[in-house]
This record gives sequence, structure tokens and C-alpha cells, in this order.
Amino acid sequence: MKQKIIQESILLFERKGFGSTSIQDIVDALNVTKGTFYYYFSSKEQLLMDIHSEYIEDLLKRQAAIIEKPGTFREKLHDIVYLLIADIEAQGPSGRVFFREMRHLGEDHAEEVRQKRDTFRRNLEHILSQGIEQGEFRKGLQVEMLSFAILGMTNWSYQWYQPDGKIQPKELTNIYVDMVLNGISIISDTN
Amino acid sequence: MKQKIIQESILLFERKGFGSTSIQDIVDALNVTKGTFYYYFSSKEQLLMDIHSEYIEDLLKRQAAIIEKPGTFREKLHDIVYLLIADIEAQGPSGRVFFREMRHLGEDHAEEVRQKRDTFRRNLEHILSQGIEQGEFRKGLQVEMLSFAILGMTNWSYQWYQPDGKIQPKELTNIYVDMVLNGISIISDTN
Repeated sequence: MKQKIIQESILLFERKGFGSTSIQDIVDALNVTKGTFYYYFSSKEQLLMDIHSEYIEDLLKRQAAIIEKPGTFREKLHDIVYLLIADIEAQGPSGRVFFREMRHLGEDHAEEVRQKRDTFRRNLEHILSQGIEQGEFRKGLQVEMLSFAILGMTNWSYQWYQPDGKIQPKELTNIYVDMVLNGISIISDTN
Repeated sequence: MKQKIIQESILLFERKGFGSTSIQDIVDALNVTKGTFYYYFSSKEQLLMDIHSEYIEDLLKRQAAIIEKPGTFREKLHDIVYLLIADIEAQGPSGRVFFREMRHLGEDHAEEVRQKRDTFRRNLEHILSQGIEQGEFRKGLQVEMLSFAILGMTNWSYQWYQPDGKIQPKELTNIYVDMVLNGISIISDTN
């Protein structure tokens, strides 16, 4: 039942927004009582926190598997972009709730989520730094800003990308990673 | 007074979310009556639409100026990224409300805004296509997906970028545009 409440709430929060969805709306949609809700969650904010925690912890676990697997740093970069893009089909609503509704978390919860998001980003930053050391990526890159750029590109896909459309997740990943690795310019200098 | 209501509402919507902000909250913050509010806006949704329209129309106007100005397509790409990044300082709250709260618009209004957003994106796509024709960008690029990637990168900056921090808007623009044009890979082929 806990997972059912979480799944239903994600859909409601996505459609109506956290602020406009009441606990009554959630229990009505599931045909259960408020008592059932409060058995699992102390408040609507606690439910939102559980949604956020599940979402980011799952991503961190799968990112760790990519980092530990043997391979080049280019491959790891590719696999992290693919992890996020391929996730849109299954986790699209969670992702959109995650990105949009974080301001509704209490300060302690928000800080906890922020730290985990930062960890995900710093892991990517570390891949870029190690890739520079290993001669895979250019020297002098601003790895911090570039990880924001790469995550921006992928996170934004949650806003528009239809995984059932003409472009498959693997293809979109290749287009993105090709731009990040090789650029779009016809000459390879910095002009 | 209309602009004052718009400005105050943007701040309230950003902090509390559209769903959790009432017309009463808005008029209380400005020390005016609900009558004043309804003199300018027929509803909270109409106010949100006015915020969205102002935001996107202003961007389209400034994008048109970049497109019309003589210059290479690389320069136009640079200037459009800079337009969006430099805007965060002045327009950050509007931008965040724009991105987060669109689902609260009525269907007709949402469609109107979507069309204008699409126009902005297609104008960028057109710059990429023309750059390919003119030999500035590589042949065979998927310009549609790449414009989503570039706008994702810049739009996402509204979530984290502090223009008063150590990285100035001009520098962040250069880092982004360098990645888009030249890639981060040490070799310039597609491996």
C-alpha cells in the first residue's frame, strides 16, 4: 500500500502540482481512508520526501555501478547520460515531481536531498577530472561548470522528450554524448 | 499597479508555488484590495498567463535582434546562450515560474505559450542548419535534438546558477559554447 500511495501521488503531483493536491485527493484516488495515509506517512511533506529519497537513491546506486565497472571515462560519461535518458520512460513523472517540487520540502529534508543531488553531480565531475588526467579529455576544462551543463541537458529532457517517439533513448544519448565529446564545429580549434 | 502585482506574484509563486499562493496572499503582500487585483486580472490563471507572455515575448524580441544582426552562426549561437544566461540575474524568478508553473495554465493559454517556446527553439535550430550549410558546423548533425540539448543546458542554469558568484555570466557562456562548438574530447574524431 505504501508504494501504491507513492505511485498515485507522483501522478497527482505531476498533474496538479504538490500545492494543489490534498491528502483527500490522494486517498480518494485510491479509495482508501485518511487513516491509511497517516499509517504510512506523517504528512504530505513526508510523502514528498519519500518520493525524493527513493528517486535520488536509486540513481546514485546505478551511477555507482557505472563508476565501478571497468571502462574508459568516455564510456562512463556515455553510460551516465544514458542512465538519465533511459529513465525518462519509467521514471518520467517521478523525475518531474523531483525537479519541480523540491521547494515544498522542509529545510532539513531539502538539505538532505540537495546533498545527494550534489553527490551525483560531483561523481560526474570526478569522471571528467579523471578523464583529463588520463588524456581522454582536454586539459583546462572547467569540470564543475561542465557537469552542470551535461546534467542540465539530460535533466531538461524530462520536460520535452517522448521516449515512444521517433528518437529512441539510445539514439538521443548518442547525439548528446557526440556533442559533448566532439562539439558541433567543423574545425576543432577554439574559434 | 499592474506591473507591481506581476512582480510581487512572481516572487510569491517562486517561493510558495502557484497552487499554494492565493489572490489574498498577493493583495496582502501589496496592501491592496481584491478589487484592485480583479481590475487588472480576471483570475489567478490570467495573471500567470500575463507573466508567461511577458517573459517569452521579451526573449523572442531579443532573439530576433541577434538573428538580424550581421555575424557568423557561431556568434549567433554564442549570443543566444548569453542572452539566456545573462538573463538569470534580472529574470531568474520569472524564468523559474515560467518553467515550473506552465501546467497551471488553461489549455488555450498553454498552447499559446508552447507555440512561442517552440518558435524560440526552432529559431535556434535554424541557426544550426544555416551554420551547417555555410560550413561552420559539421554535416549530419541532428539539429532538432541539439537545440533541445543547448536550451536544456541554459534553461537548467536557472536552477543552480548564482550570477553573483565566482563565475560571471560571460564566462559561463564561454564555457558552455566552447563545449558545444569544440567538445571536451582530446581527439576530434568521433571515438
